[in-house]
Amino acid sequence: MMVTSVAPVNIAVIKYWGKRDEDLILPINDSLSGTLSVDAMCTKTTILASSTLKENIFLLNGKKQSFENPRLLNCLQEIRSRANPGLPQLNWNLSICSENNFPTAAGLASSAAGYACLVHALAALFQIEGDISAIARRGSGSACRSIFGGWVQWCMGSSPTGEDSIARPIAPASHWPEMRVLILVVDDQKKKYSSTTGMQRSVETSKLLEYRATEIVPKKIEAMKEAILMKDFESFARITMEDSNQFHAVCLDTFPPCVYMNDTSHAIVNMVHTYNKFKNSSKVSYAFDAGPNACLYLLDSVVDEIFSVINYVFPPVTSHQADYITGIPITREPISEELKSVFEHNVLDKYGALRYLIHTTIGDGPKTLNSPDDHLLNLNGLPKRSYDD
Amino acid sequence: MMVTSVAPVNIAVIKYWGKRDEDLILPINDSLSGTLSVDAMCTKTTILASSTLKENIFLLNGKKQSFENPRLLNCLQEIRSRANPGLPQLNWNLSICSENNFPTAAGLASSAAGYACLVHALAALFQIEGDISAIARRGSGSACRSIFGGWVQWCMGSSPTGEDSIARPIAPASHWPEMRVLILVVDDQKKKYSSTTGMQRSVETSKLLEYRATEIVPKKIEAMKEAILMKDFESFARITMEDSNQFHAVCLDTFPPCVYMNDTSHAIVNMVHTYNKFKNSSKVSYAFDAGPNACLYLLDSVVDEIFSVINYVFPPVTSHQADYITGIPITREPISEELKSVFEHNVLDKYGALRYLIHTTIGDGPKTLNSPDDHLLNLNGLPKRSYDD
Repeated sequence: MMVTSVAPVNIAVIKYWGKRDEDLILPINDSLSGTLSVDAMCTKTTILASSTLKENIFLLNGKKQSFENPRLLNCLQEIRSRANPGLPQLNWNLSICSENNFPTAAGLASSAAGYACLVHALAALFQIEGDISAIARRGSGSACRSIFGGWVQWCMGSSPTGEDSIARPIAPASHWPEMRVLILVVDDQKKKYSSTTGMQRSVETSKLLEYRATEIVPKKIEAMKEAILMKDFESFARITMEDSNQFHAVCLDTFPPCVYMNDTSHAIVNMVHTYNKFKNSSKVSYAFDAGPNACLYLLDSVVDEIFSVINYVFPPVTSHQADYITGIPITREPISEELKSVFEHNVLDKYGALRYLIHTTIGDGPKTLNSPDDHLLNLNGLPKRSYDD
Repeated sequence: MMVTSVAPVNIAVIKYWGKRDEDLILPINDSLSGTLSVDAMCTKTTILASSTLKENIFLLNGKKQSFENPRLLNCLQEIRSRANPGLPQLNWNLSICSENNFPTAAGLASSAAGYACLVHALAALFQIEGDISAIARRGSGSACRSIFGGWVQWCMGSSPTGEDSIARPIAPASHWPEMRVLILVVDDQKKKYSSTTGMQRSVETSKLLEYRATEIVPKKIEAMKEAILMKDFESFARITMEDSNQFHAVCLDTFPPCVYMNDTSHAIVNMVHTYNKFKNSSKVSYAFDAGPNACLYLLDSVVDEIFSVINYVFPPVTSHQADYITGIPITREPISEELKSVFEHNVLDKYGALRYLIHTTIGDGPKTLNSPDDHLLNLNGLPKRSYDD
């Protein structure tokens, strides 16, 4: 009995930061994200349930993981409690094999896609019907948003048991087909603290966080939903940037402070504002998660030009464009002299500051793959491919 | 008729950020600072009033400045309106010569010392009695705090005319003689936006600033006053660091964001927290103004050790210690192996990240210098020394 699912990454435009319940993963505010196409970035997970498996196995990107991870066990337990008690596979061991189609070294949030994919595959395996976003939430908070495609709101809910802390689709991917996403992967050697640690510390020490969560975010959620439904890019861009900045402001207000953006991240912010000022309109917006990488939301009409700007401000050190940009191809146009003149001349310290770029769109939610070729495991529960590193 | 004053720099431990009146320079919250000794850092200003001067002249660090600067004119007007109308010098032109004894290139806030010194010298020239902090405030908000030595509160006041927006001494320099200040001047080529521009933008766009100003700062001011009066370094350090972080958080919550700290600044923050964690106590605290330089407040017993830590984490590129550290001499001890082990090993990118250090104490307020040798001008109102650059 084998199932394989793929699930997407999502990038929040109204950020989730702070839990009111650590175990149930209940947030202190609503959040809202775009689900990215699985073509460029996704997690794929195959699960085999078999009476012949001697033990539970969990392989993530080829590395054996402990099955005693409480978040994994919470997801499994919630799934099993919803299944028909007569299912034989409820008593069998599992072999789980999961991998990302994007480099994990990039520091791109992969736990959302990972847990959404795991829960989606488990739901197929145990024949669960109905909304599974609250189950995915037990794995990683933002994973609940990756259960749906398009634009997705995570409603914080008010129940102490978390049953109403679920994701809700706002608009499908097809609603705003012009929307593009450019991810700028920033070179950075700093050791990171996990977002779990960071948000715990923020809840305990930031005096601004509660005000943000209770007074500011509810209004932003409404304004953002309207901007998306009206396809009002100007408002969308402004709210996205403001919320990203405010999230990092709260991280800085934490004690000791959590600093996820670095000088390159701030140089990207500066580049976006300089470009928008030149255009006299918010043509590009940025959102930064708990790391230095930038996620730019923009419309397709702007992609070629902003790419030429990026190449001017952050000259790549590699001449292999195939390595440097993945996803949807971009036409590499020369930057106009007029546009060049508005950017800082001193780019010497920005050579090689970007590792690579991913160009993608808003996409659909998780899906089950039905071709046997898609499975990552053989019938013995062992991975088909060999993992070298 | 010639007077010469010197006035100190001050470094806020509860930050001033945001005006409720741009012209009168009235703040949206109280602030509190330590006044630094004039031995290491000060502004010196000589003013000549003479009936033979053909025009008003203002030289700052050897460079001619416009006399039409509204802040300068506001200070002059306030001083003149308080003077005895019969004074002959009220009708004479002025030659003003001002210089800092620390490199202006350092990006250290010099306007506070500059305007405090100007107003102090003008008050002497026009024989003004009583508190002049509200006059210094018209030059630069934080200048009002440099009118007093030791620990100084700037009370925001409530009058629309600003008459109660004045500085008030909390404790003299002699109250806490163990207190030391280490300024770490960070290498940085970024173009800066002035704090005037930054705070205007914060008032207009940050949704967190008002909450900070009205709900958080008043409590912090009381807690900080108590910490200073009780010489409770642990509390002093914690509040200082939290307030510096919150000030920069509000800057980041501004749209477009104001980013004053850079990767080196954050590496200093990280060094301080690592050291304090090792000591299991807040032995060192940091405060960052609108720039990347760190101001460390610490007690004298810690100076030698933290200097060895700084040299380990940020290896200086110069071998000339005389250039690298100014102010009170520090014993250069080797760092202990135990202490070394808690800091990040990868320091390669931090070579030369610090330009130089200033070691100083809390000191007294402005004073008049009475020896003719102290004057920067000759009797013709021309500078005695030649300025080459």
